[in-house]
Amino acid sequence: MKGFAMLGIGKLGWIEKEAPTAGIFDAVVKPLAVAPCTSDIHTVFEGALGDRHNLILGHEAVGEIIEVGSEVKDFKAGDRVIVPAITPDWRSIDVQRGYPAHSGGMLSGWKFSNFKDGVFAEQFHVNDADMNLAHMPKNMSLEQAVMLPDMAPTGIQGAELAEIQPGDSVAVIGIGPVGLMAVAGAVIQGAGRLFAVGNRPVCADIAREFGASDIIDYKRGDIVEQIMKATNGQGVDAVIVAGGDSGSLSDAVKIAKPGGTISNINYIGKGENVPVPRIEWGCGMSHKDIRGGLVSGGRRRMEQMIDLCLYNRIRPEKLVTHVFDGFENMEKALLLMKDKPKDLIKPVVLI
Amino acid sequence: MKGFAMLGIGKLGWIEKEAPTAGIFDAVVKPLAVAPCTSDIHTVFEGALGDRHNLILGHEAVGEIIEVGSEVKDFKAGDRVIVPAITPDWRSIDVQRGYPAHSGGMLSGWKFSNFKDGVFAEQFHVNDADMNLAHMPKNMSLEQAVMLPDMAPTGIQGAELAEIQPGDSVAVIGIGPVGLMAVAGAVIQGAGRLFAVGNRPVCADIAREFGASDIIDYKRGDIVEQIMKATNGQGVDAVIVAGGDSGSLSDAVKIAKPGGTISNINYIGKGENVPVPRIEWGCGMSHKDIRGGLVSGGRRRMEQMIDLCLYNRIRPEKLVTHVFDGFENMEKALLLMKDKPKDLIKPVVLI
Amino acid sequence: MKGFAMLGIGKLGWIEKEAPTAGIFDAVVKPLAVAPCTSDIHTVFEGALGDRHNLILGHEAVGEIIEVGSEVKDFKAGDRVIVPAITPDWRSIDVQRGYPAHSGGMLSGWKFSNFKDGVFAEQFHVNDADMNLAHMPKNMSLEQAVMLPDMAPTGIQGAELAEIQPGDSVAVIGIGPVGLMAVAGAVIQGAGRLFAVGNRPVCADIAREFGASDIIDYKRGDIVEQIMKATNGQGVDAVIVAGGDSGSLSDAVKIAKPGGTISNINYIGKGENVPVPRIEWGCGMSHKDIRGGLVSGGRRRMEQMIDLCLYNRIRPEKLVTHVFDGFENMEKALLLMKDKPKDLIKPVVLI
Amino acid sequence: MKGFAMLGIGKLGWIEKEAPTAGIFDAVVKPLAVAPCTSDIHTVFEGALGDRHNLILGHEAVGEIIEVGSEVKDFKAGDRVIVPAITPDWRSIDVQRGYPAHSGGMLSGWKFSNFKDGVFAEQFHVNDADMNLAHMPKNMSLEQAVMLPDMAPTGIQGAELAEIQPGDSVAVIGIGPVGLMAVAGAVIQGAGRLFAVGNRPVCADIAREFGASDIIDYKRGDIVEQIMKATNGQGVDAVIVAGGDSGSLSDAVKIAKPGGTISNINYIGKGENVPVPRIEWGCGMSHKDIRGGLVSGGRRRMEQMIDLCLYNRIRPEKLVTHVFDGFENMEKALLLMKDKPKDLIKPVVLI
Repeated sequence: MKGFAMLGIGKLGWIEKEAPTAGIFDAVVKPLAVAPCTSDIHTVFEGALGDRHNLILGHEAVGEIIEVGSEVKDFKAGDRVIVPAITPDWRSIDVQRGYPAHSGGMLSGWKFSNFKDGVFAEQFHVNDADMNLAHMPKNMSLEQAVMLPDMAPTGIQGAELAEIQPGDSVAVIGIGPVGLMAVAGAVIQGAGRLFAVGNRPVCADIAREFGASDIIDYKRGDIVEQIMKATNGQGVDAVIVAGGDSGSLSDAVKIAKPGGTISNINYIGKGENVPVPRIEWGCGMSHKDIRGGLVSGGRRRMEQMIDLCLYNRIRPEKLVTHVFDGFENMEKALLLMKDKPKDLIKPVVLI
Repeated sequence: MKGFAMLGIGKLGWIEKEAPTAGIFDAVVKPLAVAPCTSDIHTVFEGALGDRHNLILGHEAVGEIIEVGSEVKDFKAGDRVIVPAITPDWRSIDVQRGYPAHSGGMLSGWKFSNFKDGVFAEQFHVNDADMNLAHMPKNMSLEQAVMLPDMAPTGIQGAELAEIQPGDSVAVIGIGPVGLMAVAGAVIQGAGRLFAVGNRPVCADIAREFGASDIIDYKRGDIVEQIMKATNGQGVDAVIVAGGDSGSLSDAVKIAKPGGTISNINYIGKGENVPVPRIEWGCGMSHKDIRGGLVSGGRRRMEQMIDLCLYNRIRPEKLVTHVFDGFENMEKALLLMKDKPKDLIKPVVLI
Repeated sequence: MKGFAMLGIGKLGWIEKEAPTAGIFDAVVKPLAVAPCTSDIHTVFEGALGDRHNLILGHEAVGEIIEVGSEVKDFKAGDRVIVPAITPDWRSIDVQRGYPAHSGGMLSGWKFSNFKDGVFAEQFHVNDADMNLAHMPKNMSLEQAVMLPDMAPTGIQGAELAEIQPGDSVAVIGIGPVGLMAVAGAVIQGAGRLFAVGNRPVCADIAREFGASDIIDYKRGDIVEQIMKATNGQGVDAVIVAGGDSGSLSDAVKIAKPGGTISNINYIGKGENVPVPRIEWGCGMSHKDIRGGLVSGGRRRMEQMIDLCLYNRIRPEKLVTHVFDGFENMEKALLLMKDKPKDLIKPVVLI
Repeated sequence: MKGFAMLGIGKLGWIEKEAPTAGIFDAVVKPLAVAPCTSDIHTVFEGALGDRHNLILGHEAVGEIIEVGSEVKDFKAGDRVIVPAITPDWRSIDVQRGYPAHSGGMLSGWKFSNFKDGVFAEQFHVNDADMNLAHMPKNMSLEQAVMLPDMAPTGIQGAELAEIQPGDSVAVIGIGPVGLMAVAGAVIQGAGRLFAVGNRPVCADIAREFGASDIIDYKRGDIVEQIMKATNGQGVDAVIVAGGDSGSLSDAVKIAKPGGTISNINYIGKGENVPVPRIEWGCGMSHKDIRGGLVSGGRRRMEQMIDLCLYNRIRPEKLVTHVFDGFENMEKALLLMKDKPKDLIKPVVLI
C-alpha cells in the first residue's frame, strides 16, 4: 500500500508499506477525504517529534471501513466514518482519572503520524473502532466532515477550557483554522464581546462571520496595548491562545482580568520555557488560571461535533478554501500549509 | 405618586403613595418602559406571596434616574438605566457564600413587588445603585432593554445551571418568554439537538428562530414518550424546566440520561411537595442532578446581558408581541398575562 | 461450585453452579473475605431488584486470583486483589460522557448480585481485570480491605457530591456503615461542624471518632427542628443522605441553607415518588442542588481508597463489629444485616 | 498613636501617626496579638511594593474593637475580633465576578501594610466591619486566633485551588508556616500520599504531624528527581507551591501528572517572568492547570477558619514557635522572619 510520508527531517515522499490489519476491536479504513495540518509541517520541517523515518503523515480523515475486528459491534465494512485525530486507549487508568488524551502517557492519545502511521495512506488502522469512530451522516459533505477530527473539537475545547460566562469578553489569539473554530466555540460558550487577533483578511472575514466583534491586527501595533485600550484598561474575561509564538501566552496573561482564564490550544513548538509575566500574573496571586490541553478525542466527542453541525451551531466547512481531487495532490496540499498563501485557511484532499 | 397595585388577593387598582427617597447608596428611578410578568399574576390572583395589601406590582423596568444618594458614584440624575428584577444586598454573608439572590434570606434578593413596592409606579426606589443598576446603551431599544431585568437572565441562567457540554442534547419544557430565553441560552451554552416543549404557534415560531430543532407539542401526546422516542430511548443530556405544572420536573427527570442535569427556573406555585420519580431517578443513584435557582441579579449580570445584545448573541426583543403606550394601559397589559391570548408572548408598556 | 444465593423473594440458600471462566480480559477470583450489605437484604426480602431466582448474592469482596484471561497484563493467578462493587464496562459511551457507574445503562456498572452472580461463592468472575481490580497491599488487614469495595467509596462519594467548602457545616442523615464513611469523607472534604443523625450508640460512638461534632437522635424529636435550632435557624451548608426513609431527602432539603447541596447515597427502595418539599426548596429557586449517584467503581477508585488507608486518612476497619470464620457462617452474617442487633455495624466473613 | 513602620526601603522604626477614625461602616481596632509575615520582610528589605515611607507594617491581627461606625450592626466596642489580612470592598464589580481579593483592582483586597497602614499600631482601621470582621470565640487562644487572618486561609486555599480528589497524591513545595497550613489543608481536601518539600527539622516535624507522609529534603538532591523516583516516574496528582524560588513553579509542573493541577500561593517576588517548562507542560497540551490566587478574605472566610479550629480539623497554633509579650518586642519578632533561626516557624507578639 502507498502512503505519503516523512522520510526524514525535511524530506517528504511516497512510500510503500504493508497494509494494516485489524485487531479484534479495531478497524481498517480507506480515506475519502483528508486534510493536512500545520502540525504535519512542524513534524517534517522542524522535527518537532524528533527524527522520524518513513512515518506516514496525517491525522485528519474521514473514510470508508474496509475491515473490522471480530469484536467490533457498531461498525462494519462499507460504513462511512469520521475518525478523530485523537484515538485513546479507553482501557487505561488515565481515562479513569478523566484524561483520555493522555491515556498511556502524556499526549499518547494522539497516535496518527505521531507514533503510528497516519491517514495519508491508501488504508490506515484505527484502534478500538466502537469507541473511536463515529458514523458519518448521509447528508454531511466531506468538506464539513473532515473538519471534525481535529479543527472543530480543538477549537471548541479552547473555548471550554476558557470557562466563559454568558456575556464575558473573550480574546482569541491566532485565527488560523483552529483559532477560527475557537471563535465559533467562544460564541456557543456564551462570549459577548469577542476579539480575534490576526492579520490575514481571508481569516479575518471568517472570524467576523463566526462571531468576532473586533479584529486586532498585530501589524498595527502591540496587541496588548490595542486590547487594553479597547477595554478601557480592564482586559478581558477569557483568552484563548490558538496560535502565535511563545510570547502569545505572555500576551494572554497580560490582557486577562484578575480571575480571568487563559486557555492554550496552541502546540508550543519552541523554547525551553514558556514565560509567564510575573507582575501581570499578580506575583502568582492573580487568580488568572493558565490551562491547556490536547482535545480528548474518541467517539462521543465526534458525535457531539456532528450534532453541532447537523443543528447548525457551527459551520466548520467555511474553513475549507482549497479542495484537491485525488491522492496525487497530497504533497501540493500539504505544502500549502507550509507556504500559507494569502487566500489559504485549510486545504482538503478528496480521494 | 401613583402606582398600580395589588389591593388584596384578586384585586388590582391604582393607589396613591408617598414618593420614595434615596438612601445614601440608593437611587430613585422613573420608569420609561415596564413589563408585566406571570409572577405578578401569581401574586395577585393566586396569592402566591400571601395576602398583600396595596403592594405596587412589577419588577421589570428600565427608566431614568431622578435622584441618587450622596455616596453613589457611577450614576446621576438623568441617566437611563436598566434595573434588574433582583437587587441583592451586596454586603451580606450570603454574597460571601456565593448566593446574592438569597442575600438576607432565601429569595430575598427579590425585593420589587415582593416585600417592597414594585416598578409599576411613577417612581421607584433602587437599593445600592452602583451595584444594582446598569447604564442603558444609547442605541438599545426600550423593548429590548426591558427584557433584560428578568426574562433574559432567568432564561440564560436556566441554561447555565443545566451544565450543557458542546453538542449535548437539551430539552426546554415550557416556551413562554422565560422558556424561549432558555432556548436562546441553551444555544449559547453549546446545545446540539434542542427540544422545545410547548403548544402555542407564536411561541413555537420564536423557539425555532432562537434555535430549537424539535418542537414537542404536549397536546399530541405524552412529552416523555415523544422525547424518548425521538432519542431512541436515550433521553437528553440536559433539561431546563421553564414552565408547565408540578409534573414538569418529574417529566424532566424521566427524559434525562443518567448523569444528565435537570435545571429548574420555573416558579413552582402549588403543592406541598414536588415529586421526583423514584425509579427514573435511579433510586437516588442516577447522577441526575436536580438544580434550580433565582437569577443572581445585580449590575454585572445586567452588563453581561447588555453585551449579549450588543454583540448579537441574543435577541430578546423578539419576545415582545404587544406594546402599549402610556401608563393608563398598565391593567390591560397585565391582564394579558392572565388571559394569554393566542398571539401573546410578552407585553411591554412604554411610559 | 457452591454459592450462597437468593432462591426467590424471601428465600436464601446454598446452590451449586458451574464455576465461572475468564474471558480474555477477565479474571476468576476466590474470595478471602466478603461482607454482606443492606442491599443484599433489600434484594432478597423486599424484591428490590425484582423476582430473581438462584442469583448468588454479594458484591463486597477481596480475594485471590485463580485465573486471568490472555490479555490481562497487570494481574496473575495468586495475586491478592480488592474487587470493587461496581465494575464498569470501560469501553462504553457512558464512560466517555463521564459516568462509568452507568456504563451500558443506568446503574449497569453494578453487576455483582444484580444481573450476574455475586461474590458469595467459591469463585466469582470479574470483567476487565486490569481496569477493575486493585492489588491488595501486603500490610493491609482483610477487615480493612473488604470495606473498600463499597462502604468507603460510597460514603466518600457522598461527601464529594455534597461540594463541601473548608469549614462548611454538614449533616449526615443515617449512620449505618455507609453513613459513617460519609462522616469520615466529610472530614477529608473540609467539614467544620458535622452533624450525624442516628440513634444506635455503637454507631454514634464511631461517628464521633470519625469526626462528628453533634449526634442528632431522631428518637429525641424531629431532626429538622433539632438541627435548625442548633444552627440558629440557619441550617447547614451540605447534607448527605445515607439512610433513613423516603422522608430523609425531604428533611435534607429543609435543613439545607439556600445554595446548600443535598447529596444522596441512599438506595431509595420504596415509593413511586421521592417528595421534595416545595416551600423549603424555594419554589424551585433556592439553589439547593439535589444530587445522588452510584459510586463510579473501577481500579483507580480502589487505588485511591487504598491510599487513603495507607496514609491513615480513613479507618474503615472500625466499622467491622462482627467477624466470622468460614463460609458456613454466610447466612448468619447476612441475617445480621436484616436483624440489626444493637452492637452491629458491619459483619465480615473470612474464608 | 504609635506604629511600627517601614520608614523607607531597608529601614524600620516606630512612628507617630494620628489615630484612625471609623467611617459609618467601619471599625477601629486595638490589637491583642499580631504576627509578622515574610511579606513584611519582602516589603521592607526588598522593596517588593516599591519605596514606601512611613507605612505601618503588619496584616495579621486579632484585637478588641474601640469604635464602630453608625451603620455597623453585628459588632460593638469591646468585642474581640479576628481581622482577615484581606478586607475586600464588597460593593465592587469584582465581587460580582467572583473575586473579592481583587475588588478595586488586582490584589486590592489586600490593604493592610500595602496601601494603607497596617496592624502593628496601637490602633488600626478596618473597612466594612460587618463584612470583614469575625467574632473571636471565647475559648480560643490568641496564638490560635492570630493564625487565622492569613496563615490558615492562605494555606488552605492552596489546597482548594489544587483540586484534590480523595486519595490523590499531593506535593507541597515549601513548608514555612503557609506551606504547613497547605499540608493541613491538603489532608482536609482528601490527599492520600502527601509529599512535603523542605529542609528545616522544626518544620518537617510539624509537616509530619499535620499529615505529610514523605519529607523531601532539597539539600539531598533535586526535588524533581526525588519525587519522580518515589512515584515510579508517575508524578503526583496535585502540587501546591508555597515557597521556594522562581524555579519552584517549574519544578511543580515537572512533577505533576498530565491532568494534574499546580496551585501557587507563593508571593513570587523576583524576575520578569515565571518560567513554565515547555516539554513537561506537554507543549501547552498537558492539561496541567496552573493556578494561583490571593486568599479571598472577609468575614465568612474567617468564620469558616474558626469552625475548622473549633471542630479540631486544623491546629494552626502549632505553627507558633516564639511568643513575645509587649509591643516593644515588635522589631525583634519581625527580624526573626528575616533571620529565620533554626527553631522558628512563626512568631507572635501579644499586646
